[in-house]
Parts: sequence; structure tokens; C-alpha cells
Amino acid sequence: MVKVGIVMGSDSDWGVVQKAVTTLRQFGVESEVRVISAHRTPDIACDYAATAEKRGLKVMLAAAGGAAHLAGILAANTVLPVIGIPVAGGALNGLDALYATVQMPSGVPVATVAVGNAGPTNAALLAVQILGTEDAALRDAFRAHKQTLREKVVKADAKIREAAEQLN
Amino acid sequence: MVKVGIVMGSDSDWGVVQKAVTTLRQFGVESEVRVISAHRTPDIACDYAATAEKRGLKVMLAAAGGAAHLAGILAANTVLPVIGIPVAGGALNGLDALYATVQMPSGVPVATVAVGNAGPTNAALLAVQILGTEDAALRDAFRAHKQTLREKVVKADAKIREAAEQLN
Amino acid sequence: MVKVGIVMGSDSDWGVVQKAVTTLRQFGVESEVRVISAHRTPDIACDYAATAEKRGLKVMLAAAGGAAHLAGILAANTVLPVIGIPVAGGALNGLDALYATVQMPSGVPVATVAVGNAGPTNAALLAVQILGTEDAALRDAFRAHKQTLREKVVKADAKIREAAEQLN
Amino acid sequence: MVKVGIVMGSDSDWGVVQKAVTTLRQFGVESEVRVISAHRTPDIACDYAATAEKRGLKVMLAAAGGAAHLAGILAANTVLPVIGIPVAGGALNGLDALYATVQMPSGVPVATVAVGNAGPTNAALLAVQILGTEDAALRDAFRAHKQTLREKVVKADAKIREAAEQLN
Amino acid sequence: MVKVGIVMGSDSDWGVVQKAVTTLRQFGVESEVRVISAHRTPDIACDYAATAEKRGLKVMLAAAGGAAHLAGILAANTVLPVIGIPVAGGALNGLDALYATVQMPSGVPVATVAVGNAGPTNAALLAVQILGTEDAALRDAFRAHKQTLREKVVKADAKIREAAEQLN
Amino acid sequence: MVKVGIVMGSDSDWGVVQKAVTTLRQFGVESEVRVISAHRTPDIACDYAATAEKRGLKVMLAAAGGAAHLAGILAANTVLPVIGIPVAGGALNGLDALYATVQMPSGVPVATVAVGNAGPTNAALLAVQILGTEDAALRDAFRAHKQTLREKVVKADAKIREAAEQLN
Amino acid sequence: MVKVGIVMGSDSDWGVVQKAVTTLRQFGVESEVRVISAHRTPDIACDYAATAEKRGLKVMLAAAGGAAHLAGILAANTVLPVIGIPVAGGALNGLDALYATVQMPSGVPVATVAVGNAGPTNAALLAVQILGTEDAALRDAFRAHKQTLREKVVKADAKIREAAEQLN
Amino acid sequence: MVKVGIVMGSDSDWGVVQKAVTTLRQFGVESEVRVISAHRTPDIACDYAATAEKRGLKVMLAAAGGAAHLAGILAANTVLPVIGIPVAGGALNGLDALYATVQMPSGVPVATVAVGNAGPTNAALLAVQILGTEDAALRDAFRAHKQTLREKVVKADAKIREAAEQLN
Repeated sequence: MVKVGIVMGSDSDWGVVQKAVTTLRQFGVESEVRVISAHRTPDIACDYAATAEKRGLKVMLAAAGGAAHLAGILAANTVLPVIGIPVAGGALNGLDALYATVQMPSGVPVATVAVGNAGPTNAALLAVQILGTEDAALRDAFRAHKQTLREKVVKADAKIREAAEQLN
Repeated sequence: MVKVGIVMGSDSDWGVVQKAVTTLRQFGVESEVRVISAHRTPDIACDYAATAEKRGLKVMLAAAGGAAHLAGILAANTVLPVIGIPVAGGALNGLDALYATVQMPSGVPVATVAVGNAGPTNAALLAVQILGTEDAALRDAFRAHKQTLREKVVKADAKIREAAEQLN
Repeated sequence: MVKVGIVMGSDSDWGVVQKAVTTLRQFGVESEVRVISAHRTPDIACDYAATAEKRGLKVMLAAAGGAAHLAGILAANTVLPVIGIPVAGGALNGLDALYATVQMPSGVPVATVAVGNAGPTNAALLAVQILGTEDAALRDAFRAHKQTLREKVVKADAKIREAAEQLN
Repeated sequence: MVKVGIVMGSDSDWGVVQKAVTTLRQFGVESEVRVISAHRTPDIACDYAATAEKRGLKVMLAAAGGAAHLAGILAANTVLPVIGIPVAGGALNGLDALYATVQMPSGVPVATVAVGNAGPTNAALLAVQILGTEDAALRDAFRAHKQTLREKVVKADAKIREAAEQLN
Repeated sequence: MVKVGIVMGSDSDWGVVQKAVTTLRQFGVESEVRVISAHRTPDIACDYAATAEKRGLKVMLAAAGGAAHLAGILAANTVLPVIGIPVAGGALNGLDALYATVQMPSGVPVATVAVGNAGPTNAALLAVQILGTEDAALRDAFRAHKQTLREKVVKADAKIREAAEQLN
Repeated sequence: MVKVGIVMGSDSDWGVVQKAVTTLRQFGVESEVRVISAHRTPDIACDYAATAEKRGLKVMLAAAGGAAHLAGILAANTVLPVIGIPVAGGALNGLDALYATVQMPSGVPVATVAVGNAGPTNAALLAVQILGTEDAALRDAFRAHKQTLREKVVKADAKIREAAEQLN
Repeated sequence: MVKVGIVMGSDSDWGVVQKAVTTLRQFGVESEVRVISAHRTPDIACDYAATAEKRGLKVMLAAAGGAAHLAGILAANTVLPVIGIPVAGGALNGLDALYATVQMPSGVPVATVAVGNAGPTNAALLAVQILGTEDAALRDAFRAHKQTLREKVVKADAKIREAAEQLN
Repeated sequence: MVKVGIVMGSDSDWGVVQKAVTTLRQFGVESEVRVISAHRTPDIACDYAATAEKRGLKVMLAAAGGAAHLAGILAANTVLPVIGIPVAGGALNGLDALYATVQMPSGVPVATVAVGNAGPTNAALLAVQILGTEDAALRDAFRAHKQTLREKVVKADAKIREAAEQLN
């Protein structure tokens, strides 16, 4: 059953958004992926968010750049948590997207993740954490994932220590 | 006949938005004033913009702060020109509102004016200029207004020159 | 049963963090409030996060200013979702707190809300939304809350329309 | 009849300004294109703006980077609406151009569009919207254009949904 | 004989610009003070700059805030050096004025001084330095001024050393 | 014996720099306090730094705002570690001071602490840590200080927990 | 006779500083070029500035990036006007250099030009303008240069108008 | 004996951190190099810092990008001085790392060096300076290093002077 809706404002964002899809898949979390523009298809954006709960979605992810209104529009039309992914690029390199995503007014939060590379992956992981609040197995999977990341660091540590020795 | 719709995201913006209303009135341009939130009343925002043309509006003004999505949402739902007024305030003092208003994607422009004091007045004047493109009398009124501003500067010039003399 | 842990880096943040507590209370969500510093009591911060799941917490909120590391440290030590509240103030007025909270590396997301007034309230509402993913009653309560906010805007709209008329 | 004057501060801006010309042409709106520098040919800039109304222009577009004074100078010398296009580039990557274009003082608005790729196209579309306020056919053409953009998003949506499926 | 022309964009800048006048006076340098707006009285601005050389001026100072075009417009219309004073204030607190003053294109320099308190005084001192390039007496006066400033620091040093002792 | 030299660029900085003096005193570390301007008394600045080592100083602290060159000039003239304290204030509120202090070129480091309230205290503590590298008693004193801060947080925690209870 | 001293903080700046030399040469103004670091050769920097007047220099140009202290140090040690050229590059892309150059304290102005491409050329032109305050021939040469720039714009105008026609 | 601990948040930082190792080696200062993530291996980070003093370390260097918490976490767990190296890169190009490293709260300083190229080298040199406070030989070595840098500038000066001559 699809639990996470992933929406991007433009198909040009697909390159970065893919990481959210594959990350969710690692946790066995099914997602649906949509291209919906807050500005070019505003009614679809509103409908998508308004019907998300009934269709069984639990969380939505929204990736957009520039005057990034997508996450905010979704959040305005749902009671589900919306995770905003500010997309880097353009003349202001995503600072506009970050501000437009995170500075939401009282009453309509958007859970914002980092602008830049870590954004899509972390948005997916945050969705996993949210779904995990009532799913011990998912929490365990996330714990295992953290352990894997930890081990990667430990391995990298060993590798770099050796490299540093050789520098001597 | 009401030609300009003025929308603000919160009644707390009324203090600054008033200047837009009174400025338009100086030019005999009738406006309607609304509090509509892109995030708390998104359907009203969409409806307001979608029906604006039929109701005879020619231009819309939208004032909002923070993650200011209001102008963008109106622009998404109309073919009329939308003027965005980024409202200063908050931790980022309106820089968020400026970016969220002006950095619109291709296809959905928002005519953005200054964040800060000049914004509401200039939004109204820009509306007058837009209405004036097919209304010579309004252009003349705007010309007279420019002349008045010019005379104020000339008077201030005389006053300060005198003040500077006395400083000697 | 306490489901939400609210942590602030300094008791000077209590003024703003209170809004998170009272907001949660409106939804019948019990929270515990703690002052824990990532830099002055790092072991308590790690322990708090590491034991949160076992103690039944579902979500944590972390409010901090400046080089705001608190949310990140909690997130590093738990599988539960952590919501970061960047606190405004100081020479950089919270821009440092925003960047230090939201720009988390891949693998350790922090769900960041707005720096400034809306932050604590929205962090609480986001917690409600997260808890609501598996709690229809809570979702309904959130829906009602959105309806209340909507009605406030509609009332403000009526009030300002009248005020604008009187300006004529 | 030429209704839109497009001015750029340097011929090096022609690469980006072209999009404004071609966009206007899609709507059958004739434009004239000029290279006029606010700083190297200030008298030509003033004259151009001062005579624009008499020559039948309805709207002017001004593209400039750095300390972008061009739109402001044109606006100072006309009653016609002036649309400012801040050009990205240089050490501050157009942030200087954005501030210098949008932060106009009370009395002399510049309708500013996005700094970056969307700017020139959106400036042209805004001109179309302005001309459309008294031209139902042009409004219909803009409506059709919005419809086209919408359809592109819908197609992209289908394409990406499929791509996402194949990722499974 | 008046050698320095001091221009401000608005009489509201007089409070800060006064310091430039009084500083010049300390050096026996006569100045004329004008309120001329690049946007409200563009022709006066152009004329003022274009005739400055003939009227015997050697240097011009221009103080403006926001989209500060004044110094640039003067510089565009003269071969004399123009010193730009970005005036703090407004939503962006003078960062807009700084960028709009300093980021001039190749061929039309503006000698920009600090945004904020030091600006007007330093603009006047820079004018003194410029006039001093061919006036040994003025250079000596400037040297004496530097000596005075130095002695103030030395006195302050003594005072604070004492205060620090008492803190013991 | 005086081990720490504290230099400020202007006696107006004394209000904030005092905290550095009193903090050092808590650790029994003697300091000398000076007002020396990198720009008004450059030779004194150079001499002060050049002779610091011989006079027995171990560390220097430099507090300055705006184009804060003081720490850099001291560092250029000594082999001792220099701690830079960017002072908040002015139109850019210390962001200029932060950049001018921290962005030193290769070969001449300045150990920069926070711009804003924490700066002077932390500069003093950093000096204590540096002196402590070869002084176990000082390290113990610093450990005790950390313990005190920790206890303050623990007490604040208890106080706020109670306050939060009463909010129920 | 050498009238202009051009100093750069590092030979890596030579690429951009060359334009200042060649620009001065176009006006028959001799310059001397030096690599002097405010941080690596502070005594040479102080000496260079302190002896500049006696050696017949009239103006100094200083190009530096990062925590750009060079122009300020020169200005601290001379009564001659100093023109600061903030060099772009590094992680903050010259914003640090701009702030560190322009935000000088009261008493020690630096005439700052644009960060980025236009900087070195405009610094040279500003030097020409300064030398021209008492040299009518140099003013005429600068006037001619402005005329040349004007003609380039006029030619570019013709070229682009044609290119725009062909776009039809 | 190893006196300096160099920690990086990710092995991807090794490219820049190498310069710190080789710089220390030039001074005969032994270092150990570690990859430890504040967010992926928080316990290792805490342990590493907590045991550093006992293992004989005198100073720690911490390099991290984005929401750079590493230096702060180390500083929280030790009485030794910690030098923070903000790593450039990502959408905000290290501005996030700079703020997250330098803006530490009162009680827990981090000695921050430049974001960008100079950072790792300067962190190492700062460590040398710190170790040199009680080691005259190391101070002499640092003095010699400064002399070498000085000579490089003097040579570059000669080279560029010649290049400038040939430009004539």
C-alpha cells in the first residue's frame, strides 16, 4: 500500500528526487511519484493534497526550487505531515527555495530538510521515522540503517588513518 | 466599478496595506480589500483569483510576509497581472517574503515591488500605471502625481539648502 | 502518557517554547519539557535522546539559537523524528540557528520549522500531524483546528473589508 | 504597432533578453529592442523613456545586472509601467541587480521579476498580462498559454510516474 | 569657492548627511548641499552633474538608501569623481543601498564608503583627500586630523586601562 | 604576571570587552587591557603585537567591529595565537566584523569566536584553554567551570520542568 | 612621473589587477605595481603607504580578497586617497572582501569599487578622475573615454536592433 | 608523541584536511587523523573528546561542512582548545558550516578559522601557535615560517614588478 506521496514541481527535479524514492524502497515503503506544479497546475496540487488522506497516504514530500510554494500549498490542503525539500539551483542557488519552504506561518507547518544533496534522502528518512512512530519494525529498520551509516564511518576512519600514516 | 483587488495574508498586514487603498483612491481607482490566506484559506484564494476577471477586476495586489505564497497562488489562478508586496518583519525581516514573491517560475510572473515602506504605495501606483496603459486621463493623473513628488523634492531642496547655510 | 519531548538549549528560550507546550495541550497531547544543552550537558542530551523511544516518546522537539546543535544531537541518538526549532536572536538574528538546524547531513534528518514567531507553534502542530498519521481522532482534531484558523481569517476578512469601506 | 520597448544595459545581456522578444512574439505583441546604458548613455535612457508614451509604447522592459539602475531610470522618466529584469552574473550573482531593481522608493515603482532564467520570459508574460487588461483576445491567448504549460506538467507527470515505476 | 557638491536623495537623509558638511567645514572646504532625487527629479540630477565641472566643483558626494541610484546617475553625467554614501535603513537595512552604489559597471566608478554611521564623515574626508592630492596644506590638515584621532585613541587607551585596573 | 593582552579597536567596545577581563580573572589569569586602533594607531598596533612575546604575553584577544582589521594586524606581527572577537553593531550588525576577522589568508590565522554576546566571554575561555594546554591546574579550573555551567543547566531544567507542570 | 601606486595582496591577483595598469596607461598615467601583503609583510605595507606621499604618489589602489585588510592598512598610514578593489573568489566569493574593504571606521576612508570584473578598471578610472580634479587635460581625456564607451553602446544598440529584427 | 587530534566529519573532507596534517608535520608536530561524525557516530565523537586530554593531546582540530556540529561536540566534551574548520561546499557553499562552527554559546568556545582554502592550513598553524605558547623552539619555527612567507611575497613582488614593466 502506498503510504508516501512524493511530489516535485518540475520534471527537471527528478534527478534529485529519485534518491527519495530509492531510499524509501530500501525500507520497503511504497511511494507514488508525481509532477505537480503549485503555479501551473494549482488545482491538481490542491486536489492531490486534499484527497491524500482518503487514499491512504500518511506523509507527503514536496520538492521545489525558487519561490518554492509547493510544500506550502500541499500543507494548506491536508492534515497529513508535509516534508519540504528545497531544491538548489538558479541565481540564488536554493536560498530562495529554503526560505520559501521553511518560513511557513503559524498553523501550517512544513517539515523542512536541507537544501542541497542531503535533502531528498533525508526527506525520505524523515518519512520513515514518521511512519515508524507506530511501527516498531520500521524503527528497527531505521536503527539498522543508522548502524550501517555508523559502520561506514568506522571503515572510512580506518582507511583515512592509514592514508594519514602513509603521509608521514 | 472596482478594478483593483487588494488581498493581504493576515489582518496584521492592514497597517501597511492601507497605504495601497488610499493611494488608489487619490487616483479615483476603486478597490476591494480582502484578507485571504494562501495557507489557511487556500480555496478562497484560488476562487478569488479565478473569478477576478469575470467580476471585472483588472489587477490584483497581494501583500504577505514570511514564506509569502499569496501573490504566487493568485497569479497561478488568473490571467490578470498580480502585483506582489513582500511584507517586512519576522526573524528574516522580509527577505524571505521578497524571495518567495519575486522568484516565480517561468510562466507565472508576479510583479514585485519593494519590501518595506515603499511597497504598498508603489504597488498601488503600479496598478494605476497598468490601468493607465489604456486610459490617458489616468496617465495624466499619474504625470501630475509625479510632478507633485518632484515639487516636494524641489521644496525640500530649498529647505535643506537653507539649513545647510545656517550650519555655516 | 507523554508522547512528545520538548527540549530547549537554555531556559532563556522558555518564553518562546511555551507556545509549543500549550499548543500540544490543545490537542490533548501530553509533553515533557526539558532544558538540556548540547554543549553544556552533552551526555544528558545523548542519554535523553537514546532512551526516548523506550520511555514511550514518539516525537522530540528541540529549540536552540546560534550554533544550534541540539536538534542534530538528539537526531543522532534516536530513531524517532526530531523537529528543530531555530530560535531567533543574537547578532545574526537566528539565521545561524536556521542553517545549523536544517542543513543536516544525509542519514540524520531534522524536520525544521520556521525561525521566528511561528516556529514553536508549528513544531507542536507538526508533532500533532505526525502522531495523527496513525490516529484518526487526532487528524480530526487537526482538521478542526485548521477550520478554526480558517474561520478566523474569514472573520478578519469581514472586519478589514468594513474598515476599508470606512476608509472611503 | 510596437507596444513594448525592451531595453538592456549591455549587448552581453542579449542572450537572456532574447527570450522576452520571442515570448512576446508568440502572443503577436510587437516589441522594439534597444541597448541603452543608464550609466554610459544616460541621456538616451532618459529620452527613450520620456518619449515612449508618445511613440505609442504601453510597457517597457529593462534588463540589467550589477548596480542595475536602468529600470529605475526609465521609470523615473515615464508614466508607463516599467518591468525590471535583474540579470544574474558577476561576483554577487545578481543579488545586487535584484536589490537595485526592486527596492525603488515611494512614487517610482518598478515591476520586478525573478533574477535568473525565468526573468526575461516572465517579464514578457507580465507585459502581455498588462496589455491584456483591456484586450480580451490577449487574455484568452494568455489563458491558452497557461493551459499549454499545464498540459506540459501533466505530460511530465505521466512520464515521471512511469520512470518511477520502472525504478521499482 | 564651493568645491564639493553634496547631494542627498531625500531630505530625510539630512540627519546623517550633516556630518559630511561639518566635516568638510573643519577643513575649510566649502560645500553646497542639495536634495535631488534620481527618481523624482532625474533631469535635475543629470543637469546638476553635467554642469558641476563648469561651476567649479571638484568632487561630488551622493547619499541615498534603498535602490540607491543617485551616485551612479551623477557619475554617469560627469567626469568628476563621485563618492557614494549608502544610507542604512529600510527592510534590508542599507545592504540594498550598498550593493546599488558600489557595484557600478566598468567605465563609471563610484567611490563607495561604508554603509552606516561612518559613511558621511568618511565621504567628506575622502573628498578632502582628493582635494589634497594637489594641495599640500590640505594634506597637512588631514595629517593633523589623523593625529587628533590618534590622540583620542591614546587618551581612550589610558582611560580604559585605568577602568580595567579598577575592575581588579 | 600578565599573560593575556586584550585589545579593543575603540573604547566604545569596552562594554562588551569587560566580560573577557572578568572571565579571565575568575581563572586567576591576569590580563592587560588596551585601546588600540588598527586604523588610527597602526604603528601602536604593530608594536604592541611585535613586542608581546618578549613582554611575556602568551595570547592576545582583539575585539573590533565593521571592517575589523585589528585581530589580523596583531596576528601579522606576532607568533603568539590571536583570538578575534567580531563586535556586533552597525548597519551590517557585525557580519562585516565576522567576515573581516575569520577569513584570514593562509599563514596568518585568527582564532575567531562568535559575533554577539558570547564572543568576549568565549574569547577569554579560549585563552584559558590555550594557557591550560601546559597547565593542569588551569585545565582543572576550566573543568570545574564546565561543571558549574552544567549544574546551572540542570537547575534551570528543574525550574522549567516545574513551570511546565504548572502550565498544565 | 609615477603618480599611482597599485598594490595587490598576492601575485595571484595579478590577473585581475593588470586591467588597472593598462587602463591607467591609456590615460598616460604612470603607475608602479607592487605585491605587498597586509598580513605577511605588514611592515612593508605600512612603509609603502607612509612614504608614498614623499615619493610623489597621488593615489593608491589596493586589491585584496578574503579578509581584505590591505586597503585599510594603506589608508591608515597615509593622507593620500586609497582606492580599495575587493577581489572576488573563495568560499564567500568576495563578499568578505567587499565588507572588509568598504566598512572602514570613521576617520580612515577607503574609496571602494565593485567586487568582480569591473573593479580593477574602475579603480584605475577613479584614480584618473581624482588626478583630473586639477588637470583639465586629464578630465578631457576622461570625457573622451566616456564618449568612446557611449559610442560602443550606440553601436551595440544598432547591432542588437538588427539582430532583433532578424528574430522576427 | 601525538599532540594534535585532527577529526573530520566525513572522509570526503580528507582532500582539504590533508593540508593540516602536512603543515603540522613541517613543524615536527605529530598528529592523529580520525573520521568521526557528530551525527553518525556521536558516541565516538564524545568519547574521543572526553579521553583526549588523558591520551596526551593538547589541541583538537575539527573539519565539517553543512550543519557543522563536530567542533562544537568535541568542545562540549573536553577542556582542551578545539579549532573549527568550516568546510566549503554544498548549496550554501560553507556559509552554513561557518555559522554552525563559530556561533557557539557562552562557555564552549570553538576557535574558528576561515571557510575555504586557507582553513585547514591555518588551523594547523593555530595549533602550532597554541603549542608554542610554552615552547620557544616552536615559536622560533613559526617565526621562521612567517619569514619564509614574507620572502615569498617579496619574490612575488619582484616578479610582478617586472611583469608590470613589460606591460609598458
